[in-house]
Amino acid sequence: MNPTPHRYEYRVIYGDTDAGGIVYNANYLRFFEIGRTEMMREYVCTYKKVADQGLILPVIESYLRYKAPAFYDDLLIIETKLTEIKKVSCTFTYKIFRTDEETGKNKLLTRGHTVHASVNLKGKLTPLPEELIVNMQPILFSSFSA
Amino acid sequence: MNPTPHRYEYRVIYGDTDAGGIVYNANYLRFFEIGRTEMMREYVCTYKKVADQGLILPVIESYLRYKAPAFYDDLLIIETKLTEIKKVSCTFTYKIFRTDEETGKNKLLTRGHTVHASVNLKGKLTPLPEELIVNMQPILFSSFSA
Amino acid sequence: MNPTPHRYEYRVIYGDTDAGGIVYNANYLRFFEIGRTEMMREYVCTYKKVADQGLILPVIESYLRYKAPAFYDDLLIIETKLTEIKKVSCTFTYKIFRTDEETGKNKLLTRGHTVHASVNLKGKLTPLPEELIVNMQPILFSSFSA
Amino acid sequence: MNPTPHRYEYRVIYGDTDAGGIVYNANYLRFFEIGRTEMMREYVCTYKKVADQGLILPVIESYLRYKAPAFYDDLLIIETKLTEIKKVSCTFTYKIFRTDEETGKNKLLTRGHTVHASVNLKGKLTPLPEELIVNMQPILFSSFSA
Repeated sequence: MNPTPHRYEYRVIYGDTDAGGIVYNANYLRFFEIGRTEMMREYVCTYKKVADQGLILPVIESYLRYKAPAFYDDLLIIETKLTEIKKVSCTFTYKIFRTDEETGKNKLLTRGHTVHASVNLKGKLTPLPEELIVNMQPILFSSFSA
Repeated sequence: MNPTPHRYEYRVIYGDTDAGGIVYNANYLRFFEIGRTEMMREYVCTYKKVADQGLILPVIESYLRYKAPAFYDDLLIIETKLTEIKKVSCTFTYKIFRTDEETGKNKLLTRGHTVHASVNLKGKLTPLPEELIVNMQPILFSSFSA
Repeated sequence: MNPTPHRYEYRVIYGDTDAGGIVYNANYLRFFEIGRTEMMREYVCTYKKVADQGLILPVIESYLRYKAPAFYDDLLIIETKLTEIKKVSCTFTYKIFRTDEETGKNKLLTRGHTVHASVNLKGKLTPLPEELIVNMQPILFSSFSA
Repeated sequence: MNPTPHRYEYRVIYGDTDAGGIVYNANYLRFFEIGRTEMMREYVCTYKKVADQGLILPVIESYLRYKAPAFYDDLLIIETKLTEIKKVSCTFTYKIFRTDEETGKNKLLTRGHTVHASVNLKGKLTPLPEELIVNMQPILFSSFSA
């Protein structure tokens, strides 16, 4: 049985949009960061605490599939799942929704993922600490449900 | 025989970097935009001219593979290629390099691609205009060389 | 007697910081936008509703005084006040705080203001609508307390 | 007699604009950074070299006066002047222009300034090094002409 995906709200400001009248494509990677930061804070521990232990988790790959545009003042729902834990990397998968005011249904706007390497302060690949893996395991989604 | 890839220089400012001391992952999508904008300007026509004809080319997919970090004040080389033209979409492929000051060799930092839909002002998918395709054909890379 | 200033929380992400390890100076103008948007939403009406009436309120002046840096993962408090209503403009004044975890006291990090012109869709200066002024009056701070 | 102001070109991308169809107000602070970085590089030394000497020059105050909007694909001219050198701070003053294609005249879009403190790596105010002041003196504008 899979855990409940983490959900977090974000309100779109003018600074997120572009002259096409929609949220600028790069800014979804900011929303992805918000999603995984808040998921880690709630379910595991803060990124800051991870960094304080001498571990950094830089993004080494990101993928985005834009299905429908988001607009100024939209209240977005950022859904984040941990979908893979490997020896020296982990993967987060995201869906960005907007709730339709009339039907109450969530419309999928953008989905994607980010892969993060486990790196020490010298910049060398290093295995994810056992304690962190133990804490992340309960929130891992099976690949079939991702 | 393939055309010469388009190259454009960009200087990293503090505003592009993050507290990890490196360029923030989302900002490479800005560099990709700079690359394809300047390639289109030089080889085909400005995006603005395309938009004036009632055609917009929103990003519907993007992929990034971060191989090595870029730092403050780096002079980046943005290499852009047109790698696919379909009926209602086209794909640009990018490589971001930094020239090593000592060896003069280009180090690959990030590569990726963006897929763009061809959409009219009402937001409907519409075939890429014949004239635009004719103008883009000479700069198309074969998929084998992309 | 003055109204209660509006307060809104914002969590700093990596995307807000720079290689100096602190929040990049330009991003405080984003925080100012968040503050006035949420104040307007709560006390008057949404910016979107103002825009739907054919009125836009572009920033024509901004001022920022950076007193102390904000860092990654800081939970900022954005305090916003409406401090001036004129015929064709209005002014918002902001203070950005961080709560000291030990003492519980708020430390002032940045303060500033933005001045907004009242402009119609043709880009011409136009008096602020009477109804909007009436709705904004109760939340106006006297200049002495700003 | 005053020195020639430093000028640098910047092309506006979609990522700089907002849903109002114009450059987002915060992004002018990015343009100011580009201007002073390139002025320092050309006339004095790189910021990076200053930082390598253990000196950082954080922005402690910024002011912007937006006179007219900049649009997508505008080729902006960033004019930067050094307008004040004090014991522990210095001030840069900026004008952002767009050249009118028909008349060839430069239209002023935004002007402003940034004040920078001289701080050591421990975050303490420290006098600007004598050597740096000597190198900056020739490019200082008198306050009357700023």
